[in-house]
Amino acid sequence: MVQENLTLAIEILGTIAFAMSGSFAAMQKRLDPFGILIIAFVTSVGGGTVRDLLLDVPVFWMHDMIICSVVFITCIVSMIFKSVEKRFRVTLFIFDSIGLGLFTIVGIQKGMNADLNPLICITLGTITGCVGGISRDILLNKIPLIFRKEIYATACIVGGGIFLILVKYTTLSYAFVQIFTILLIVAIRTFAVKYEWQIPKFYGVDDNAEM
Amino acid sequence: MVQENLTLAIEILGTIAFAMSGSFAAMQKRLDPFGILIIAFVTSVGGGTVRDLLLDVPVFWMHDMIICSVVFITCIVSMIFKSVEKRFRVTLFIFDSIGLGLFTIVGIQKGMNADLNPLICITLGTITGCVGGISRDILLNKIPLIFRKEIYATACIVGGGIFLILVKYTTLSYAFVQIFTILLIVAIRTFAVKYEWQIPKFYGVDDNAEM
Amino acid sequence: MVQENLTLAIEILGTIAFAMSGSFAAMQKRLDPFGILIIAFVTSVGGGTVRDLLLDVPVFWMHDMIICSVVFITCIVSMIFKSVEKRFRVTLFIFDSIGLGLFTIVGIQKGMNADLNPLICITLGTITGCVGGISRDILLNKIPLIFRKEIYATACIVGGGIFLILVKYTTLSYAFVQIFTILLIVAIRTFAVKYEWQIPKFYGVDDNAEM
Repeated sequence: MVQENLTLAIEILGTIAFAMSGSFAAMQKRLDPFGILIIAFVTSVGGGTVRDLLLDVPVFWMHDMIICSVVFITCIVSMIFKSVEKRFRVTLFIFDSIGLGLFTIVGIQKGMNADLNPLICITLGTITGCVGGISRDILLNKIPLIFRKEIYATACIVGGGIFLILVKYTTLSYAFVQIFTILLIVAIRTFAVKYEWQIPKFYGVDDNAEM
Repeated sequence: MVQENLTLAIEILGTIAFAMSGSFAAMQKRLDPFGILIIAFVTSVGGGTVRDLLLDVPVFWMHDMIICSVVFITCIVSMIFKSVEKRFRVTLFIFDSIGLGLFTIVGIQKGMNADLNPLICITLGTITGCVGGISRDILLNKIPLIFRKEIYATACIVGGGIFLILVKYTTLSYAFVQIFTILLIVAIRTFAVKYEWQIPKFYGVDDNAEM
Repeated sequence: MVQENLTLAIEILGTIAFAMSGSFAAMQKRLDPFGILIIAFVTSVGGGTVRDLLLDVPVFWMHDMIICSVVFITCIVSMIFKSVEKRFRVTLFIFDSIGLGLFTIVGIQKGMNADLNPLICITLGTITGCVGGISRDILLNKIPLIFRKEIYATACIVGGGIFLILVKYTTLSYAFVQIFTILLIVAIRTFAVKYEWQIPKFYGVDDNAEM
């Protein structure tokens, strides 16, 4: 029961984090309020929707108003705080990373509940964590998608792998492992972004390539 | 029975409208005939496909040749009329908007038939109306996707909300409400596009942003 | 039994071909190893995943480690051979086309097994063959997506149509028809790419268009 509540709390916190990241990204592109709502919605439910379609279970936001209400309220709050956007930028990067960590763990848990192979569970976790942010960037036509994307991927796969190892081969409490892994994913991503800032020239783009 | 025929007619008209919009967009990008067919297909069935996957019902075009035949014939007709493309441009904008209105209402109705919450119904209607056009623009690599997207969203959400209110709280005939709301969505979108033409400079793009 | 093994072999060969094409495309964009793995995975399972969701059957890579292992091993091998990338370029174009041919035929067969209309089968084959490559290009933000996309489409539709005609109206052995059609799709695509190189100016892009 406590565990169930913790998992629901993780899902709602992740939804809030991604809805904020989607809203602010959409406001940076100067969309109107309904456009912002759409981007916030896609960012926060995109990953879980693909996960549920792959698992062939009912899509989590279709029969329950909690998630949609959370997205809606987060969106309104983000728009009210629009004026302080610049100050929020670093905070928001952290929020986006927290969302990534939270959703990756939720995805892995749903895969474990369906008795899937551990590697498939990590794949599901990565999909749950990454698809929302990737969709947001594609819809907003953001050019440097590729840089963010790989950081998403690396953090999810490494963090998810460590989560599975800690759950299976240690006697640490499940709640502790969840929170530790989420913080680890946030840390990996933050490190990766800092690292990228230092060596941007290695990431040349070669669009003339034949393939 | 009459209502069922009206809904089928709305679905087919929407398919024709979006298939035309997809065909002409693909011809502007100078695709070959099969590429045009693919884009027309994705534009007209994309939204309904995602809707049916979310509802976990059989995908509407998989077990029935009507929709595929309509797309195929519309495509051929569009290619024959390719030479008069420039004249058709404004007409096509109207067609695209009509498709948006028709598909939004179809999506909301399918959500209502599945006894979903009204807000989820509006979400389904928006998905049905928008996904085809968004996919078309992503596949054709159209840069100003973002401007169209928000107009899609705003028109769908406002029109869909008014549709639900009129159906639930008035005694107006269902057929009248359908046609009125479809025309309203077309009107909203046309207004939005005109409005955008007047203040393009407010839509600056800030790609250097960290998030 | 022999036929079943041949179909499995075709699926695995297609997975290898697309995983290589995805890996090399990701390495050209200088992604880190996990980013490369993600792109290879999306490229090789994307088409089949959409096909299985549309058919409402279990997604082929979810309950079976063969496909995931093949992608993983192919990815490692590609990274080891990274240094010889330039030499591999033409070979890789061939691999990508072979993947296209193999997956198109697999998709058509799955549609035939589900007793779908022949035109829907060709559509499924085209989706199975094209979605992976299109997703790869969208994720990697490759600009000339459109040129590749239509070649994909044309080769799939023509090859798939000929496959169905040969299966239904001739007495040729099924294995021969499979291999012949796969080679035909490779040939059509190679011809199309060569043709495009000769008339690039016809493919002007008109982004100022209203629609």
